[in-house]
Amino acid sequence: MPEPVTVAVDANGADLGPAEVAAGAAAAASRGTRVLVYGPAEAIGDAPEGVTVVDAPVSIAKAAEPVMAVRSTPDASIVRAARAVGAGEADALVCGGSTGAAVAASLFNIRRARGIYRPALALPLPIPGAPVLFLDVGANVEVRPEHLVQFGFMGAAFARAVMGIERPRVALLSNGEEPTKGTPELLEAHEQLTARAATVEGVEFVGNVEGTTFTEGVADVVVTDGFTGNVALKLIEGVSSTLLGAVRGAAESSARGRAGGLLLRGALRGLRDDLDPEAAGGAYILGLRRVGVVHHGRFTRRGIERAIGVAERGVRERAVERTQEALEAAGALRGAPSESTATVPS
Amino acid sequence: MPEPVTVAVDANGADLGPAEVAAGAAAAASRGTRVLVYGPAEAIGDAPEGVTVVDAPVSIAKAAEPVMAVRSTPDASIVRAARAVGAGEADALVCGGSTGAAVAASLFNIRRARGIYRPALALPLPIPGAPVLFLDVGANVEVRPEHLVQFGFMGAAFARAVMGIERPRVALLSNGEEPTKGTPELLEAHEQLTARAATVEGVEFVGNVEGTTFTEGVADVVVTDGFTGNVALKLIEGVSSTLLGAVRGAAESSARGRAGGLLLRGALRGLRDDLDPEAAGGAYILGLRRVGVVHHGRFTRRGIERAIGVAERGVRERAVERTQEALEAAGALRGAPSESTATVPS
Repeated sequence: MPEPVTVAVDANGADLGPAEVAAGAAAAASRGTRVLVYGPAEAIGDAPEGVTVVDAPVSIAKAAEPVMAVRSTPDASIVRAARAVGAGEADALVCGGSTGAAVAASLFNIRRARGIYRPALALPLPIPGAPVLFLDVGANVEVRPEHLVQFGFMGAAFARAVMGIERPRVALLSNGEEPTKGTPELLEAHEQLTARAATVEGVEFVGNVEGTTFTEGVADVVVTDGFTGNVALKLIEGVSSTLLGAVRGAAESSARGRAGGLLLRGALRGLRDDLDPEAAGGAYILGLRRVGVVHHGRFTRRGIERAIGVAERGVRERAVERTQEALEAAGALRGAPSESTATVPS
Repeated sequence: MPEPVTVAVDANGADLGPAEVAAGAAAAASRGTRVLVYGPAEAIGDAPEGVTVVDAPVSIAKAAEPVMAVRSTPDASIVRAARAVGAGEADALVCGGSTGAAVAASLFNIRRARGIYRPALALPLPIPGAPVLFLDVGANVEVRPEHLVQFGFMGAAFARAVMGIERPRVALLSNGEEPTKGTPELLEAHEQLTARAATVEGVEFVGNVEGTTFTEGVADVVVTDGFTGNVALKLIEGVSSTLLGAVRGAAESSARGRAGGLLLRGALRGLRDDLDPEAAGGAYILGLRRVGVVHHGRFTRRGIERAIGVAERGVRERAVERTQEALEAAGALRGAPSESTATVPS
């Protein structure tokens, strides 16, 4: 029997309320995870077996200025949960929203791992037949080339550890496939990723990917800055929902269409399951000293259980340590020896 | 009878070849447009009535470095067509690809209108029930705030003149709806657009729009830089095609699904017609001294006829002059008096 993993969970970030989070935690606990739930004890009620409820009624989930709220509200549930992870009372953090508060609470309390410039938010996208780990989807509006390079190796290490992809193919999201396409930051990151990925095992840099090929399975990890990533992610959501709505509308526009829609229902349910955002458990905060997972506020107990499961897997698979090793091997840590030294074969 | 409009068309930028372009030109000519077609006379054959074929067999449509190709190939068909527009022999330019060559040939030969920083590529997106004029989709990888401000007024003026939207709602694409969200360039553009749009009629600045609401009809004109715009546009294409393919796959996965798909076919054909990229005629190059339209290389004669029609409409509706007037009224021309002076009520 391996040591149980302890996950600290903020119960105030789910739209369905703290009791739904506690239900997700109970499901995870029934599979052997130790869960500390931070939230209003009164709303949660009796703690299920394996779950410790820590009374933390203060919520900053809806704060307009999340970073400021994290700084000024040390007793907020999300801050207390992150502090427990930082202090080693738990091995991983799971929280809902807001994303800004999750990143800030993690950054201040769990802190960056050694040599990391900036934590990044990585979201596994359930593209049918071609899943992609997409980062940064919103932690850093502006980035330097070395940040993008770290994102690439961080994403690859996490894809290997948690998603079980042996040799992840890493790409940069750009406005053309040619290495000459993109912002100056991207061109520089392209050059560095080409050079550094060639010197290490377990990762392949496949160059630039465009929006048109993004969904075609040409890369396992797609890297961009947090502005473009956030815009892209929301566009994917918006276009998917508009288009599926239009298909549904077409199916309801006539008796003939309705009959067709009924016959298709089973097959489309399969597609909906493929696209289910709860299946992936949420986004990972990469670059911390411990594992952090942010689930969507809309998640039900099922998605929250999954988020706790993903966090546990990250701990068991030593995702943080392996990320560190990968960055070290690639010479991509902050303050690493210059590239020319790092790439000399020994 | 109004004066006929003359449109110069490059015949070398269509995947289906010069004869297909000539067929599109013939259809436009039959409605009274004068068309000058620049391309290989041999491949085109006899000129239909109303069409003048100018033998210009040299093509740079597939050049790897379009800007350099435009500079070094003065007899390329696209360059000759643009030169005819610059010289006043034609009122508007219509060309296919590459987009880079189209923008460069226009910039060098038709030239920027007075007070314009940078031309921008604006594409009408056929979102069902909520069409959007989206710019810049690829002309400028890096922009300054004042460029984004011009894009907003240029897009609005064009939407008014060519799309017939009386008071276009202009938005900035960002990573959040709050005015505090975005890159430093966006925050500055947001401030300037708020101030300047308040002083002029015929345009409403509605703030930031995110990808999730992009498809929901909250704005008529959505402004972004050419990097984000190009990535976003290709993502919309990629996600749409993957998703419709998955729906089709679901419909073909069983006998039941196939029967449903057959019954739905008519309704889905309506959706496909709504999404038809040829219907809009292509993207507009805004900020030139005359009208420029770039159609997709994949277009058939129908889309090319439409592109010529859109160009003619731009000329008849004085899109260029009205764009200039709108920018002048907003104090958004290059070298305009400082904002404080421009916004003093007279």
